Amino acid sequence: MYNAFKLSLSILVSSLYPKARSMRRVQILLLLAVCKWVVTLAGRPLGNVPAAVRREVYDNGRIFDITHMINPRMPTWDSKNGLGEAVKLVASMKNGSIDNLSEMKFSSHTGTHVDAPSHFIEEYFEAGYDTSTLDLKTLNGPALLVDVPRSSNISAQVMKSLKIPKGIRRVLFRTLNTDRKLMFKKEFDSSYVGFLSEGAKWLVQNTDIKLVGLDYLSVAAYTDLNQTHLTLLRSRKIVVLEGLKLDDIKPGLYNLHCLPIRVLGADGTPTRCILME
Amino acid sequence: MYNAFKLSLSILVSSLYPKARSMRRVQILLLLAVCKWVVTLAGRPLGNVPAAVRREVYDNGRIFDITHMINPRMPTWDSKNGLGEAVKLVASMKNGSIDNLSEMKFSSHTGTHVDAPSHFIEEYFEAGYDTSTLDLKTLNGPALLVDVPRSSNISAQVMKSLKIPKGIRRVLFRTLNTDRKLMFKKEFDSSYVGFLSEGAKWLVQNTDIKLVGLDYLSVAAYTDLNQTHLTLLRSRKIVVLEGLKLDDIKPGLYNLHCLPIRVLGADGTPTRCILME
Repeated sequence: MYNAFKLSLSILVSSLYPKARSMRRVQILLLLAVCKWVVTLAGRPLGNVPAAVRREVYDNGRIFDITHMINPRMPTWDSKNGLGEAVKLVASMKNGSIDNLSEMKFSSHTGTHVDAPSHFIEEYFEAGYDTSTLDLKTLNGPALLVDVPRSSNISAQVMKSLKIPKGIRRVLFRTLNTDRKLMFKKEFDSSYVGFLSEGAKWLVQNTDIKLVGLDYLSVAAYTDLNQTHLTLLRSRKIVVLEGLKLDDIKPGLYNLHCLPIRVLGADGTPTRCILME
Repeated sequence: MYNAFKLSLSILVSSLYPKARSMRRVQILLLLAVCKWVVTLAGRPLGNVPAAVRREVYDNGRIFDITHMINPRMPTWDSKNGLGEAVKLVASMKNGSIDNLSEMKFSSHTGTHVDAPSHFIEEYFEAGYDTSTLDLKTLNGPALLVDVPRSSNISAQVMKSLKIPKGIRRVLFRTLNTDRKLMFKKEFDSSYVGFLSEGAKWLVQNTDIKLVGLDYLSVAAYTDLNQTHLTLLRSRKIVVLEGLKLDDIKPGLYNLHCLPIRVLGADGTPTRCILME
């Protein structure tokens, strides 16, 4: 019985490994094959790998991701072609490297990002007011998500109509931009909704708001870029947060955590923002 | 008297503006000068601009920034020369642009960053397990900061000696790397302290830890890179957090918020991390 098994094994292995002429060789080759299989398995996860899932809601609805994914098809300022390749693989396991390793390259105002005072005010640029000087207290704390009227840019009149209570320090303004899904369209659309400078001025003079969040690439309407940014950034106390992803979240009060990466010398910086209930 | 004033003003202005031959011209030129002065002031903050201050502690000691600043002199993997220029100005107000605008470029494993399962496991790379698939619940919540013995890499023995209680899900390991200020030295130092694979294996098998934070560019000792990463990343449930800035913070329990920017396809991603009391 054992000899019959040895013989059939020998024939089987000889067909796989034609050079194995004796049982000793068969045993050695089998041992090598098993070793190779064990070593291969040790470096791999067991079982099949399910496809990766990307989420917006975590922890049973307690955490909402309000950050747009930086990806080649996302819009970028004044361009028809979208962001393009932001992540480039510079070493890969497939080509024999010990690990997969990539490089990132993008505008400092890509996707969901903060503006620094240095973005629109030259004196602040020269004095070093980059995004690493923004106050983490302002970027972390209670925040109100509000819907604004869909018919116009954010004027003083619109600001008045929102009746944002005194004491509210952080407001995320959801606009027609979210309904139109502008952040999901590759081509830049200058007809987005933003603040008019008179609306920004009203906010500065009549509210306690220190963080202003909007749902497209600029807080300022396209026709009023300069003055709106100046009005908001001049005091260096207001953080401007742009490109937020506010779909599918109920208006109301949340705990905002917004953490731009810490980079020296940048006039804008991509940031991850979450709302917690 | 008025004529004497007009005359002296005329002489003064003529000396400043030699082409002003008549009083009418003087008046027009003065008006233009005033207008220019008003317009210039409107675009500037009033008063002198104090130099920018960068902080690690915010909100009267309630928020600690545990993120290293991405800057040209910070160390980068296996290099003597440091990171170099990561931020490049591509449009500037000084040169007539409406705003200052820069571009960022750096390795996905720069400074304080997270590793994705795709970093060291090819199947996970192919299935899309980049950093955007990491669980935001794991990255936000109670975390323990512990000091580890300064004499060795983190072995099973060291892990045992730390007596980390069951139920603790996030641990930031402060090591000799912080004492040696390695993250402030331009030249990469392979003698840094990290996990040995047997230490990582002990952690996986004997604790509830789902976030492992360390204070130099790799969680794994230089001599045990591959197996340590494999051991920690294989389950796709453990987040690896590298390059933390843990100086001047008391050991103990904090609320960690760690938010890597949301980027499609990256094997690693710079992140901002804070501790809140």
